[in-house]
Amino acid sequence: MSEAPQVAVLGVGLIGGSIGLAAKRRLGAEVVGHSRTASSVERAVALGALDRGAESAAAACEGADLVFCAAPVAVLAEQVRAALAACGADAVVSDVGSTKGELVAACGEDERFIGGHPLAGAETAGVENAREDLFEGARWYLTPTDRSSGLGYDRLQRFLTGLGARPQAIDPASHDRLMATVSHMPHAVANALAAEAAQALTEGSERLPEVGPSFRDATRVAGSNPEIWGDIFASNRDAVADSVESVARRLGEAAELLRAGDREALAAWHAAAGESRRRLLEADAGAGPLRELRVIVANRPGTIAELALALGEAGVNIEDMALYPAPDMTSGAVTLWVAGEAGAARAAELVRGLGHSVSVVGDE
Amino acid sequence: MSEAPQVAVLGVGLIGGSIGLAAKRRLGAEVVGHSRTASSVERAVALGALDRGAESAAAACEGADLVFCAAPVAVLAEQVRAALAACGADAVVSDVGSTKGELVAACGEDERFIGGHPLAGAETAGVENAREDLFEGARWYLTPTDRSSGLGYDRLQRFLTGLGARPQAIDPASHDRLMATVSHMPHAVANALAAEAAQALTEGSERLPEVGPSFRDATRVAGSNPEIWGDIFASNRDAVADSVESVARRLGEAAELLRAGDREALAAWHAAAGESRRRLLEADAGAGPLRELRVIVANRPGTIAELALALGEAGVNIEDMALYPAPDMTSGAVTLWVAGEAGAARAAELVRGLGHSVSVVGDE
Repeated sequence: MSEAPQVAVLGVGLIGGSIGLAAKRRLGAEVVGHSRTASSVERAVALGALDRGAESAAAACEGADLVFCAAPVAVLAEQVRAALAACGADAVVSDVGSTKGELVAACGEDERFIGGHPLAGAETAGVENAREDLFEGARWYLTPTDRSSGLGYDRLQRFLTGLGARPQAIDPASHDRLMATVSHMPHAVANALAAEAAQALTEGSERLPEVGPSFRDATRVAGSNPEIWGDIFASNRDAVADSVESVARRLGEAAELLRAGDREALAAWHAAAGESRRRLLEADAGAGPLRELRVIVANRPGTIAELALALGEAGVNIEDMALYPAPDMTSGAVTLWVAGEAGAARAAELVRGLGHSVSVVGDE
Repeated sequence: MSEAPQVAVLGVGLIGGSIGLAAKRRLGAEVVGHSRTASSVERAVALGALDRGAESAAAACEGADLVFCAAPVAVLAEQVRAALAACGADAVVSDVGSTKGELVAACGEDERFIGGHPLAGAETAGVENAREDLFEGARWYLTPTDRSSGLGYDRLQRFLTGLGARPQAIDPASHDRLMATVSHMPHAVANALAAEAAQALTEGSERLPEVGPSFRDATRVAGSNPEIWGDIFASNRDAVADSVESVARRLGEAAELLRAGDREALAAWHAAAGESRRRLLEADAGAGPLRELRVIVANRPGTIAELALALGEAGVNIEDMALYPAPDMTSGAVTLWVAGEAGAARAAELVRGLGHSVSVVGDE
């Protein structure tokens, strides 16, 4: 691969467009794209994400050092096979799909194919949202097999690092189990919970009651992007079903614990879950354990801004945030997660300075 | 009850303190408090939430027209019984506990007792967070029984309306099932999910992987306030267990649907869940159906503030918000929920004006 690789992008949305932008601006690559939607290619060229569009996927692959397949999961195998048929013996063909097992089983025989999955970008956003720095610091999973070309893997890995990403090799089954646990299963659970509440609350009730902040949080991803999620669930069905069944078993155990009604045992179970969550989130954060701040605010327009601005100006980053509006939206609570003791203390001081009530969970 | 009622508050934290502040400032009430923690009473007097502290719960109840019991759920029945023993024949004794069935079963024989539950305020916040307007517009459930004094109910209802709240009568069992569905069960599910992920991700893994935004959202309430939640779960054990078992059954069905792998059926199931969630949330919002905006931003300090400020200045209220930081916190996505088509369109315009990418879900 020369210093300026030739790259083909098949499917030009947020991910494909951002690969193009980053490859052109950061690596001086020549990027050719193809999409079933001609207007996406036109927009991508106008945005500088592609040098040009190609008539067909095969034409885009001609002379490419690297091919990225970015079709929806359901038609990805077909697209990868077409790319492999069209491109040269030294090319590397990869993809950006959310599940890997099915695809690698379908296409992994070819030494030029290495599956991939960047943890960045929303599935539905179009090319107009493409950004050069979308992959900056983002994990990019790669699923080479024992048939994959070593030279090809090296080229792909260096290219992705050049885009700003952090590539990491993982076997396809582990990848899919991991995604089932941290992403796909939570979507399934959110669905079950929304359905349960909808049925329970509409039975024999004239109007729907206000729902609580815990319901908002627990169901936030319910039903997002049905077509895409239908595909993801289907292509990772066994790992997601295993994980969902495991959660169902845990809930069965929780129901027994609840019926026994032992306050101390319930408190211990609850505390252990909080500890598990903190440990998992801290793997993400750099500046120390996450601390939770509870702020009570007037929920008029501008309050959240004022609050976030005060923290921002002081260089305190909000790692996670949840708003709990009161039913009439005139007042509410905000929970903020900030990394590190010092960050939390500084944040609390700033929030108090604005006249809001704040408590740091665990402090007294 | 005269125009200036005498009120006793037993247990002086956020809720008790806010009752005192609102009763004094809005209704000119005389408010006497008692707490097992003497310093809370001192702070409440200093903040103007109480006229004075009393030596004992019985002393606080002397001459009171209205008594509010705000002890933790586990000791609430004991506190209500003590208040009923101490106060006069015309007094009304109520409480602010999160569950009602157990308490009403224990104390409902006395015509002076009417259970209550305001949907406002966090359980752990101290009296220093008390606010006169904490209950402004907030639902305040009341659980009168056929033994309850009609005059007492009328007095309590008028008093709560005077605090700014919206009282609503509900039978204790319905209240507890409702709370199980919209609040207690989601906490239990979040716990199960956090425990599942912690076990799945630490088995045979050297380091914890990044968790997804769906995991963050779905587990946000996992493990919060173990002592308080141990009590709530225990005192509403059957309704929560029923609801948790129902969700477990739904997850079992979801696992079957997943294993069948029918993409269209999975997409339809997913879409129905999204529809359920929207319908439930819309019961809360006034200005029309909630619309979802997805924004891609640099996750530097200040970005969220800038965004929220722009919306706030234009009078567009953010009804709900979720941050999805990228693993390294340098970039991320923000999902905003805004009420009404016009609000969503205006918000999208403002966000675009700041140079961020934004899409309104459902628009193309």
